[in-house]
Amino acid sequence: MILTVTLNTALDITYRVGSLRPHASHRVSEVTERPGGKGVNVARVLAALGHEVTVTGFTGGATGRVVQEKLAEVPRVADALVPVSGATRRTIAVVDERTGDTTQLNEPGPVITPAEWSAFQEAYADLLHGVLAVALCGSLPPGVPVGAYAGLVRTARAAGVPVLLDTSGEPLRRGVAARPDIIKPNADELAELTGSYEPLRATQDARRRGAGAVVASLGPEGLLAATREGRWRATPPAPVRGNPTGAGDSAVAGLLSGLADHLPWPDRLTRATALATATVSAPTAGEFDRGLYEELLEKVAVTAEVTAA
Amino acid sequence: MILTVTLNTALDITYRVGSLRPHASHRVSEVTERPGGKGVNVARVLAALGHEVTVTGFTGGATGRVVQEKLAEVPRVADALVPVSGATRRTIAVVDERTGDTTQLNEPGPVITPAEWSAFQEAYADLLHGVLAVALCGSLPPGVPVGAYAGLVRTARAAGVPVLLDTSGEPLRRGVAARPDIIKPNADELAELTGSYEPLRATQDARRRGAGAVVASLGPEGLLAATREGRWRATPPAPVRGNPTGAGDSAVAGLLSGLADHLPWPDRLTRATALATATVSAPTAGEFDRGLYEELLEKVAVTAEVTAA
Repeated sequence: MILTVTLNTALDITYRVGSLRPHASHRVSEVTERPGGKGVNVARVLAALGHEVTVTGFTGGATGRVVQEKLAEVPRVADALVPVSGATRRTIAVVDERTGDTTQLNEPGPVITPAEWSAFQEAYADLLHGVLAVALCGSLPPGVPVGAYAGLVRTARAAGVPVLLDTSGEPLRRGVAARPDIIKPNADELAELTGSYEPLRATQDARRRGAGAVVASLGPEGLLAATREGRWRATPPAPVRGNPTGAGDSAVAGLLSGLADHLPWPDRLTRATALATATVSAPTAGEFDRGLYEELLEKVAVTAEVTAA
Repeated sequence: MILTVTLNTALDITYRVGSLRPHASHRVSEVTERPGGKGVNVARVLAALGHEVTVTGFTGGATGRVVQEKLAEVPRVADALVPVSGATRRTIAVVDERTGDTTQLNEPGPVITPAEWSAFQEAYADLLHGVLAVALCGSLPPGVPVGAYAGLVRTARAAGVPVLLDTSGEPLRRGVAARPDIIKPNADELAELTGSYEPLRATQDARRRGAGAVVASLGPEGLLAATREGRWRATPPAPVRGNPTGAGDSAVAGLLSGLADHLPWPDRLTRATALATATVSAPTAGEFDRGLYEELLEKVAVTAEVTAA
């Protein structure tokens, strides 16, 4: 079983409108809802790959109930969300049917009380028993201390559970210092952490700061990994068109899936790159095209990086 | 007790954002939620005036539960909403803090099945017993027949309950033919019904089509009423600045309140005009400024119209 943590869970709502015009009134032609937040997205992809997954984080209010009702419909996903008094946030993606553009409105999320944060830490420590790996994903809701991920990384390491951290800014900086097994920053997050936009240099620097392995997601160029066993670049055979939303979460799912299946690093990177690419090309944001994924497993190129850091 | 009917109830959500830009991602700084739909707004104002009110219409899904939880917190408002399998719609008002402009996103509402529509009609007929007046307000959700209001008007008349109809388009046209006691169109709705933008002519024409009394809301110019007892114009003492959202619903509440208190027409029009004006000037959309309302009760001018139609 794999555990994913999403402290800022969300109900992701998508609206289709003819054309979004500020100051006008719009009739929404189509409404879709699904549970969201990065760890929830990772769990959905892992479950689609056949893994048993448990999701934890916070849930509250009417939106939290909808998130839980919808999670209950996903095979192989177990709900271990911790109840809070505030309401789970909504995110609204407004898709303009004329241009295809998406405008995003993100609620801030509930304020977590110190008692709720303590209750979560206890639940998390219990959930780590017998877990193959844990992923800590996304932003922190108001009220959770900025060092939250550092603490959760330490608890996982103390329990002997491999831990992947996927966040940004100060929570990432502090989390890295607690020595997570893997981090998966994108180019901007990596540059913010290390001060360098030169990916080879930055991945090495992030390892020196405490990360066991650094897998940088470089958009259409694929992944660059710096690990204890070596450094590799994984590249899709050709660029794909589509929506990059969720591609990073799919890459995390691929890394965890390969870790759970005891694959060597190059095969984990192949899986992660194939999933991310198949997510970009899927018609629904955050879903992946299974046929393309299976095809790409044979076509992603993984090459060892031999440049001296 | 006064009954208000809102077939397309809503959870009205207001988001504040720094500046709304299409294709960008926005952090919502403030989220407020309240039960909505025109009849629910009318009920809230009536309750604030001290009347006992029952609201009916449809409720469903997680949003319907929130609407009902929030209605339960309003003194003097009883919830007689009829459950349906679909989810109550959301409306989202995105307020741009830089310009003050509001961008509106309205979900279409649940599709009402024929069985749900039948169940509503039965519940409605039961609720009419012992009611002082009933208001039928707003648009029809998908699945409800376009002649719905005509049927509800006939049921009220058969029960001897005065009925006010506040809707637009074809539902208004058919509803008027069923002879409601009062309609309260705005200038556009009245012109769509009668073909005339000349208010005096149009109100008379709407009476000929079946409405017992026609109270046209003319924005800052106040109200124009054509009734069996005479014709009047009610005008606020001076134009007010503010948000006209909900002013029409407040006017309906004023008319019903005056009807329930057995006031003569000029006093009903004073009450309606004072409430509508105090709603425009209130800082929160749909609320009214009670001090200004009480002040305006002494200052609204009601003059008899003596022009031949």
